[in-house]
Amino acid sequence: LTIAGWLDRWKTNPQAAARDLLDRQQKRIAKCAAGKTPQWIHLVALDVLEAQINELLKTDANDLPLYGVPFAVKDNIDVAGMPTTAGCPEYAYTPDSDAFVIAKLKKAGAICIGKTNLDQFATGLNGTRTPYSIPHSVFSEAHISGGSSSGSAVAVALGEVAFSLGTDTAGSGRVPAGCNQLVGLKPSKGYISTNGLIPACRTLDCISIFAHTVDDAQNVLAVAGVYDPEDPYARQAQPAVTSFSSTNLKLATFSNLSWFGDTQQQAAWNAYVAQLAARGITLTEIDPTPFFALAPLLYNGPWVAERLAALSEFVAEQPEAIHPVVREIVLSGKKFSAVDTFNAEYQRADLARKIQQALSEFDALMVPTAPIFPTIEALLAEPIKLNSELGTYTNFVNLADLSALAVPACLRDDGLPFGITLIAEAWADARLAAIAKQLNQEQATIPPLRHDEIELAVVG
Amino acid sequence: LTIAGWLDRWKTNPQAAARDLLDRQQKRIAKCAAGKTPQWIHLVALDVLEAQINELLKTDANDLPLYGVPFAVKDNIDVAGMPTTAGCPEYAYTPDSDAFVIAKLKKAGAICIGKTNLDQFATGLNGTRTPYSIPHSVFSEAHISGGSSSGSAVAVALGEVAFSLGTDTAGSGRVPAGCNQLVGLKPSKGYISTNGLIPACRTLDCISIFAHTVDDAQNVLAVAGVYDPEDPYARQAQPAVTSFSSTNLKLATFSNLSWFGDTQQQAAWNAYVAQLAARGITLTEIDPTPFFALAPLLYNGPWVAERLAALSEFVAEQPEAIHPVVREIVLSGKKFSAVDTFNAEYQRADLARKIQQALSEFDALMVPTAPIFPTIEALLAEPIKLNSELGTYTNFVNLADLSALAVPACLRDDGLPFGITLIAEAWADARLAAIAKQLNQEQATIPPLRHDEIELAVVG
Repeated sequence: LTIAGWLDRWKTNPQAAARDLLDRQQKRIAKCAAGKTPQWIHLVALDVLEAQINELLKTDANDLPLYGVPFAVKDNIDVAGMPTTAGCPEYAYTPDSDAFVIAKLKKAGAICIGKTNLDQFATGLNGTRTPYSIPHSVFSEAHISGGSSSGSAVAVALGEVAFSLGTDTAGSGRVPAGCNQLVGLKPSKGYISTNGLIPACRTLDCISIFAHTVDDAQNVLAVAGVYDPEDPYARQAQPAVTSFSSTNLKLATFSNLSWFGDTQQQAAWNAYVAQLAARGITLTEIDPTPFFALAPLLYNGPWVAERLAALSEFVAEQPEAIHPVVREIVLSGKKFSAVDTFNAEYQRADLARKIQQALSEFDALMVPTAPIFPTIEALLAEPIKLNSELGTYTNFVNLADLSALAVPACLRDDGLPFGITLIAEAWADARLAAIAKQLNQEQATIPPLRHDEIELAVVG
Repeated sequence: LTIAGWLDRWKTNPQAAARDLLDRQQKRIAKCAAGKTPQWIHLVALDVLEAQINELLKTDANDLPLYGVPFAVKDNIDVAGMPTTAGCPEYAYTPDSDAFVIAKLKKAGAICIGKTNLDQFATGLNGTRTPYSIPHSVFSEAHISGGSSSGSAVAVALGEVAFSLGTDTAGSGRVPAGCNQLVGLKPSKGYISTNGLIPACRTLDCISIFAHTVDDAQNVLAVAGVYDPEDPYARQAQPAVTSFSSTNLKLATFSNLSWFGDTQQQAAWNAYVAQLAARGITLTEIDPTPFFALAPLLYNGPWVAERLAALSEFVAEQPEAIHPVVREIVLSGKKFSAVDTFNAEYQRADLARKIQQALSEFDALMVPTAPIFPTIEALLAEPIKLNSELGTYTNFVNLADLSALAVPACLRDDGLPFGITLIAEAWADARLAAIAKQLNQEQATIPPLRHDEIELAVVG
């Protein structure tokens, strides 16, 4: 169900909607107890949910933009009274207060039904780096869900919630959208407050939104994207730059796209691009050099030290509690000096400038959301290499201070979904949404397959 | 002479103006050869200057905003064909091209007559950290000129040039203005391109302007403040926020100002504040805690690693060529890690936010430009301590991304000048200029003492 679908339910028959939500939560809790919901780390207890619904029923459904709309929250974002684990049970604590963005969503009537699985400490793009069960794509038990916001994507794709919050530092809000045929909105940095988020890289982290449609994602952003004067990295939203000519869309893409041998992804891209061309929408190839020069700074440069800064006490006290791949990445932050950091920052600033200049001639850059769609088995066999490949078209975005929107494109020949991502300068969020709707003629943003409450098999 | 004065000369009698400029340069070169001009490191040769003037005479004086106006350039900014030393002869090189800002000024008709002395590598606020002769205040042979833009301030104060370029990372464009009764304009970060500047702290460096009047400084900024797409830290100027009520000026100052025992500075401040109060202009005291918490990050935190990053090759190859105090500061950058850097950046961002919020209720913050005005002897006896005290009201400004304008206030009882600095958010440059003119009723920004071509004694 989309947000409009939920609002309609509540307006038509609030008692039935309440009953339905509670019934489904009861079944979900039972499944979770049976270990069949790898997307969830924590589900709200039935009595707590019931109390929230009863409180909500005192308000008119027409007064709140997200009245009674259930949503899921990646488990590195605080929700009062629920444990925050960041995918590491030994790290868990239970916050007394909601993250800034959670408070805004609740105030708008949305109901958080639980916390979702993730690549531990949001370090990864694949979804396998968790001590909990490993989620998989809702399209294939064998294939990755994408990460790090794995559970948040799966919960939406299954129709358990209308939308969810993820986070996105290197692409964690986009790759899982691609793997599950969802919209993944990575807003401009500082648009959604990160107060109440366990940082990955504090200077880059964005809270992101998964939804079934572009409009839903935009409607959630309208509630969530409130300037937070208490967040040092919050920025006042700039006037939305929405202007573009729908009859003369100026779209760029990279010359020489890399697919790392994934012919299915490549074929899907070619088919989608051909379909656009048939409608008169063409792509101009640009040089990807500055984009690809920027990306390695994120994991192979000093920015990994941000992950260490966020976890320094925990990693010193309980190193064995951390997933081995995550621990290796986090500890690699030790090898960089302050001089390394500033030199990398100069490089970042220079490349960001070049990237922004290259993009200024276009309405948006269109790229595959990910060049590969590996199986869980393949990923676990080469966890660093394949993760790095997954980030090919996402890693540079936050370092270059860009906005991005991942949307479904088409299905591959093997039935797996293929997604594309639109990218532009900061504060172009609204323009990207409008372009996405034009590209997909609205309809494709409503998923062609519906997975309402599909049971998700457990892998790993 | 102000800029208007010079323009008037050229328009009235260009041949006489040319002759006068050349005569003065000839005398200056002779003085320099005799070691009597500690403000200058390099002076343009007479034949070169003559060729420039002859070229200029082909243009109508009405066509260029800075036609024939002589200016001086701090010797860490490239001027084509002149050696750049950064105050370190062993470091010197001769650039083929002008720094971006120099090209803009030349194109507007201004004539660079030479390069000025500085605290080596712009590391200092006092003017004594130079292997060349030590400049002093034009008001006293015993007292410091202020730094690091020592020579640029002295050359303007002596009337040798109408304006000069300095740089300002920790206050180097403001402290020397205070010591020499000048206007020192520290523009918003990214307003004037830093391409062609030897960096001190690249993420913080600003090129600054010394002039006799606020209008002159603004007129130079209008020419110099052009967005440079090749400078990664350049920013598009925001619309000037000039609005304030001149009848209800909202000025803040710090509660409990520190003077470190300098009773003359304190008395001058009290006299100036009393004079403003008599005109109905009052100051609201605010808590300086976040400002003073931010300042130490600049020299005692990871930002010193930027100085090391800028000089890493040179400091490795010729450490003995560097002034010992400067070398100690630069090398202290080695002790910081990437994690230290990010932790300090989080602290910076948090304090900057608090500072910007505190300032948002006021038109400007007014502080003493410096709390002390030491002698050269005292400074050399305690070079780190007194330098740190000099930066009390300047150090936090660039870390908090603020605009600042130092202006003359009054004379102390001992005849030395006392200056105040106005501070506000980024891109408030024009508002600060308007407030300064109101505070000093225009007249005080024209220096009450004129030092046209006063001979400067050599100290040290």
